[in-house]
Order: sequence, then C-alpha cells, then structure tokens
Amino acid sequence: MRVRGAPAIGVTAAYAMVLAAAELQSRERGQAGSQIAAARPTAVNLGWAVRRMLRVAEAEPDPEAEARRIQAEDEEINRRIGEHGRVLMPQDGEGVLTHCNTGALATSAFGTALGVIRAGWEKGGRFRVYNTETRPWLQGARLTSWEFQQLGIPATLIADSAAGMMMLNGDISCVITGADRIAANGDTANKIGTYALSVLAHENGIPFYIAAPTSTVDLSVTDGSGIKIEERPQHEVTAYGGMPVAPSGTVAYNPAFDVTPNRYITAIVTEAAVCRPPFDDSLRRAVDAA
Amino acid sequence: MRVRGAPAIGVTAAYAMVLAAAELQSRERGQAGSQIAAARPTAVNLGWAVRRMLRVAEAEPDPEAEARRIQAEDEEINRRIGEHGRVLMPQDGEGVLTHCNTGALATSAFGTALGVIRAGWEKGGRFRVYNTETRPWLQGARLTSWEFQQLGIPATLIADSAAGMMMLNGDISCVITGADRIAANGDTANKIGTYALSVLAHENGIPFYIAAPTSTVDLSVTDGSGIKIEERPQHEVTAYGGMPVAPSGTVAYNPAFDVTPNRYITAIVTEAAVCRPPFDDSLRRAVDAA
Repeated sequence: MRVRGAPAIGVTAAYAMVLAAAELQSRERGQAGSQIAAARPTAVNLGWAVRRMLRVAEAEPDPEAEARRIQAEDEEINRRIGEHGRVLMPQDGEGVLTHCNTGALATSAFGTALGVIRAGWEKGGRFRVYNTETRPWLQGARLTSWEFQQLGIPATLIADSAAGMMMLNGDISCVITGADRIAANGDTANKIGTYALSVLAHENGIPFYIAAPTSTVDLSVTDGSGIKIEERPQHEVTAYGGMPVAPSGTVAYNPAFDVTPNRYITAIVTEAAVCRPPFDDSLRRAVDAA
Repeated sequence: MRVRGAPAIGVTAAYAMVLAAAELQSRERGQAGSQIAAARPTAVNLGWAVRRMLRVAEAEPDPEAEARRIQAEDEEINRRIGEHGRVLMPQDGEGVLTHCNTGALATSAFGTALGVIRAGWEKGGRFRVYNTETRPWLQGARLTSWEFQQLGIPATLIADSAAGMMMLNGDISCVITGADRIAANGDTANKIGTYALSVLAHENGIPFYIAAPTSTVDLSVTDGSGIKIEERPQHEVTAYGGMPVAPSGTVAYNPAFDVTPNRYITAIVTEAAVCRPPFDDSLRRAVDAA
C-alpha cells in the first residue's frame, strides 16, 4: 500500500521491470513479471504495464526509456480525461462527490476523477466539491483533502456514510470516481464503497461517472463476475495508525474493492471519449481509438 | 456524547431531573427540564423522559422512584422488543447486519436492535452477525463489537462502506437498526448511514427493520421533514482519538443522523407489536397498546 491508485501502480510496475531487467536474464524476467503482476490482483494496470515492458524487453536496449514513456503518456492521458469529462461537472453552487484518491498521488500527474474535477475548476466552474474519507485506509481524508488544498479547490470532507443523506437532501448533483478494472460490459471494480455510492446516486436520480484510462478497461473480462477482489488484513479495520479501535479479538472482514454493475453507471470517461451505455460498444470503440 | 443511544439518553435525563428537583424550586424545574431536553435535539426519548419527570414532580415526594421506574420499564420494554423481533432473524448460516450501537450500552439493559439479535441467538438461532464500525464515532467498532463478545455471539466487523457489496453478494439476509425518533408516518431518524443501508437493502430485496420502544415514536411529527438533525463538530471527522486524519485546515461536514423514508422500512419492531406499513395506522395502534 506504499503505492496505490491503478495508474500509479502501473507506472511503478514499469519501473520495477526496469530494475528486474537490469539484474535478470531474459528467462527470469518473465518470472519477475509474474511476481510483480500478482502484487495487487484488482488493478488491471499492473499486468498491463508488466506485459508492455516484457514486449519491449528484447528489442529495447534501454528499458527505462519505455517506463518513462508510460509515465509521460499517463499524464497526457489524464489531461485528456479531464478535457472530456469537465463538461459533466455540475453548475456553479451545485455539488460533486468523489471517493477515495484519484489525483496526482494515484497517477503520474493530474489525476482521473480528481483530474476531471480539476479541469472543471480550471475552466472556471465553481461547483462545490465533497470527498469521502474512504475507510478503512482514509485515502480520501489523508490524500484527496491534501490534493484539493494544493490545487486551491475548496472541498468538504464527509464520512462515507453521510453521502447517502446528502444525495437525498439535494446537496450532490453528480458523483465521479476512478476505477481499478473495467470489464468489457462496463462493470467496474473500484475502492470499496463505490457500489454503495452508485446505488444511492441511481435511487436519487443523480448521474454517476467513472473516469479512467482505456488501459484500465480489460476486454478479456466479460463482466464483473470475472474480476478478482483483493481482501486485505483485518487490522486495517480494527486499528487505526497502530491504535486499536475495536476490542482485542474482534474479527473483521476487509474487502478492498467492490464491483459496480454497469446499470448504475451513467458514463465512463476515458482519454478517447465519454463512453455511454451500451458499454460493450462504446468501451471497445474507445480502446480501439486510444 | 458520554451518554448515547436514545433510550439511555432518556433514562439519563430522568436522573438529571432528579438532581434538578433536589436543588431547585418548582418554577425553576421547568427551565432545567428545557435545558436538559435541548442537549441532544434528535433523540425524542430525551424530551419524553423530561416531560414524564415534570408531570410527577408535584405529586411525587421521591422523584428518584420515578426515574428508577423509567429505567426498569426500559429493560422490560427491550426484552419485549426482542421477543417480537426474534422471529424476523434469518436462517442459520444467513447474515444479519446492524449499525451503530443499540445494546445494553445504549439502553438500560438488553438493547433494541442488538436485543432482537440477542433474543434470536438465545432461542438457538445460529445466523451470522455483521456490524458496521459506524464512523465517525466508531460506536459499532468500539461498543457493539464489545457487547457481542460479552454475549458470546460471534460477530464480524466491517467498514460502513462494505455493507453494500455484501448485500449484493448475498451475504446479508436482513438489516436491523435502532432509532432516535420515528415520525407518525414511519420516517425514522437514526445514526448517519442508516438511510444508505436502507436504500441498499431495498435495491437488493433485503428486509430492513427498525427496533425501538414506542417512546421513540413521535406522533406530533407528521413525517421526517419535521425531525431536526443534529450537526456535530468537524473534528470528529478530521481527527481520531486526538490524532489528525486529514490535513490541517480541512473543512468537514458531520451530520450525526439521517432520516430513512418509510418506503425503505419493512417493519418497525416495538414492545407492543411488529408494525408493518402503512405505518400511520400500525404505529398509532402500537403507541395506544403500549
């Protein structure tokens, strides 16, 4: 968890392959790639970056150049996601909600969902920004609040469980999150709690958007049932910063991600296009165009 | 927040009135009652206990006897809620989810929603029990996990935002929570996050139950729009146990309760009966019968 956020995981994997290439023979590189790819099962960008690095490993005398290209491309892709997505941001004074961390700290630079919010603000939009704290790791409280401060975008932090009543009360006009893996039909794995936000948005007639590069789309997976969900240690729930928050002996269940069925997703914003249902078509076209 | 849980707040208010009665003249007692009643705006049991204590103040030479009666009645009422509610608990091996703390620590004894779960287990039910941590105060992690341990009922702690995916995955067969104030039409104020759980249960075809004494039903309030929601300090979200969890200067919004519209509630379990929709009728009959 030193590195988190699917695009940042991909870039880090690319540099890990550079280190592996420097030390290992060709035969061993594939094995190192398998080990790196298995480190985080849900983020598709990990395997994507490893495969891309393995493909160039034979032909490219300087694998670091390829890792640098992946990193530079990721920033450019995020800026294009922001350009496509910013028109979806709400009117001045209305609220947008985001979950977890999807900014520069989760990518090479700029961000995915956070990048869309940033692009909207940079074009003069003055909507309100809310971000969830995102238990158990508190990526929202710790990272997203910090990123919005750095960008000079006023944001209000809420407990994850306050999002529902804010939607019911009309405080939220749209929700936008990132993604860790998107199946061919649009079913989307993302940080735990994303599914709940999508259902609450649907029930309250609020658009729910995903922002992610096309490298997060996994056309080899037909639907969400094929996405493996990483289960993380219990102590992330039972303790905080080393301090217990539950009595000794408490058993906890800690799934790190959930899958949002495509029927709750209004649009998926990629660097190629804003994809709308049916996602089977629109995502394939976006992947081909990218 | 030293005392929390609507029934426990009511009992504490009764004892506070005993202290006020010992020190104050009749005229001042009403003023003390108003101050006590205003301490927590959402829990209806507070004003209910104060009014009951004021009614007996003139006739009763020993107001503490009335406070003791309120306390003893609350325990008996909770046991009757458990008796009525336990048949709603799921089959062995299926899961029930509860939110916040509604056990002996939130009442005089036994508990409301937790009392229903306890009553089911005491009759031999071997369903699975899940409890949310209940941010920002973590009443679920700190108190409910402890109560289940004391009762010998195996329970699994989850982050609030994991509840949705567990419902989608079929791990939860019913949800049961307490209440802080129930309007005449069944709209129910309870701990923040309750509304979200009710929508997720509804979307997944899972029954959603409220367990509360009839003293929590406020027939003077037509619907949920008449229930005042307590907003609590920002630092409960931005810090935990005195340790910051968000950067300095982060603005937070911290509503302590939300209102669940009656359309998401399958039944309200009181000491008099299991009330079903339409709640206008069933709740009034329960209040009359109690």
